[in-house]
Amino acid sequence: MTAQVIPTIQELRGALASIRSAGRTIGLVPTMGALHAGHGRLIETARRETGCVVVSIFVNPIQFDRSDDYERYPRPLSIDVEFCSARGVDFVFAPSAKEMYPDTERAFVEVAGVSEHLCGQFRPGHFRGVATVVLKLLNIVQPDRAYFGEKDAQQLAVIRRMVSDLNVPVAIVEVPTVRDADGLALSSRNQHLSPEERRIAPMLSLALKTARDLISGGETRPAAIKREALRILEEYSEVRVEYLEIVGAEDMQPTGEITGPVRVAGAIWIGKTRLIDNVLCAPGGAHPTQTARG
Amino acid sequence: MTAQVIPTIQELRGALASIRSAGRTIGLVPTMGALHAGHGRLIETARRETGCVVVSIFVNPIQFDRSDDYERYPRPLSIDVEFCSARGVDFVFAPSAKEMYPDTERAFVEVAGVSEHLCGQFRPGHFRGVATVVLKLLNIVQPDRAYFGEKDAQQLAVIRRMVSDLNVPVAIVEVPTVRDADGLALSSRNQHLSPEERRIAPMLSLALKTARDLISGGETRPAAIKREALRILEEYSEVRVEYLEIVGAEDMQPTGEITGPVRVAGAIWIGKTRLIDNVLCAPGGAHPTQTARG
Repeated sequence: MTAQVIPTIQELRGALASIRSAGRTIGLVPTMGALHAGHGRLIETARRETGCVVVSIFVNPIQFDRSDDYERYPRPLSIDVEFCSARGVDFVFAPSAKEMYPDTERAFVEVAGVSEHLCGQFRPGHFRGVATVVLKLLNIVQPDRAYFGEKDAQQLAVIRRMVSDLNVPVAIVEVPTVRDADGLALSSRNQHLSPEERRIAPMLSLALKTARDLISGGETRPAAIKREALRILEEYSEVRVEYLEIVGAEDMQPTGEITGPVRVAGAIWIGKTRLIDNVLCAPGGAHPTQTARG
Repeated sequence: MTAQVIPTIQELRGALASIRSAGRTIGLVPTMGALHAGHGRLIETARRETGCVVVSIFVNPIQFDRSDDYERYPRPLSIDVEFCSARGVDFVFAPSAKEMYPDTERAFVEVAGVSEHLCGQFRPGHFRGVATVVLKLLNIVQPDRAYFGEKDAQQLAVIRRMVSDLNVPVAIVEVPTVRDADGLALSSRNQHLSPEERRIAPMLSLALKTARDLISGGETRPAAIKREALRILEEYSEVRVEYLEIVGAEDMQPTGEITGPVRVAGAIWIGKTRLIDNVLCAPGGAHPTQTARG
């Protein structure tokens, strides 16, 4: 069955009103398109848990801190629609920037605390843009459940906090990161990598895995762990590390001595491409319920 | 019939789910309690337009810039509940501060532009607190329509902008200001006035009416209009003018030469009590659709 592509808020609301009054639950998978197996897993999870799946495809201008990154972001809409159709998606919501931001945007959502470190430190305004567009999408679709990937762990923490603090009536579902065989976390940005860059890219997940192994082996000193992980990345002159940080698993604040679950998160540049990844880690051999594959 | 008083979000959501599935529309009247005939008009309008009326009574700590003002704010809950019952309200949502803010609040809504002048200039964080609590209430109640008084015109502009920019699925209904016979706009704060202060309080509405008459008589220069209006207030040594401003009717930005609909808004202190009021004005004798009584 072909997914129905809907470009306007009004049409989508109309279509979903019928779904809702028929008693079907609605699952939302918000994406920026260029769909890959990571999105595939979000969609499959939504398909399993809800009666009607909406995938939004919208490259959100207000979450980009660099206009070249925004313009360069891939937008293969017809391939994405096929991808959704093949996975039983009911509606693809693909609005224009004008449809989502008809006027100069004045209202924004800020999520303090969880937004401040990691990517928040290097991409000013990014999480404000993410929180604002996700709230807009939640208000437009009014889903029962919304699905987000663990790969963007800080984004997930921001959204969880927003939903909880603002009493948004939706369940947020976290779906584990999907990785290539060599460990590279799937990302729409991976397609920008040259073959040589692609060969180096899995080193980020290797560095994070090394940190995780040290933590589960009993190491509790963040500085020592980061040193070992960074050593792996520093072997490659093509890699520029933006950050590699150990943060509390929920509050996303840099941690001192590790005594509970933490997330090791990193962002690197390879050439003109920025990649992020993270793994959840439990100290001293205890295994957290959700560990990233890799 | 007695209005049902509900103190928790979960109970309210449960009660409203039955209302909604029975096909009844829901109207929300958000208040801070100490209800008066102005609130009465909001409730009557909601009663006429929707199948189930929810009045929220919550003195919102995060919109107070002064803790003494927050503590001093009147909280006559049982009288308020009687007031609601007498007017056919179905549910009074009266949560504790802990119920609304169980944790240190991290997510906030900011509405740039409309929040910045008038009260926004003198009450830092006020409209952020207002926008955030109203969004929370809208998410908790999920009403079809929500009712706000014209007396708080800037608040209304902030909420309209928030609802529009964030695609909140609700209709915002503006209800005209209710005034005492001498012109004083009804406010929960009026009860703080001593008899002598109460005698002087209507001068604010008189000053605004003077400005409106000048504008409808053809005067287009804000400075000249403000001078005349201020002259009225300056006769009273007990009155301290916080601001008296002429702003665009929608954008709430101070205006130059008056060529379209404007709002004349003022805030004064009489003793320890702060009063606000505003009137909508059309230039050159044209009558705007909604003028304030007075």
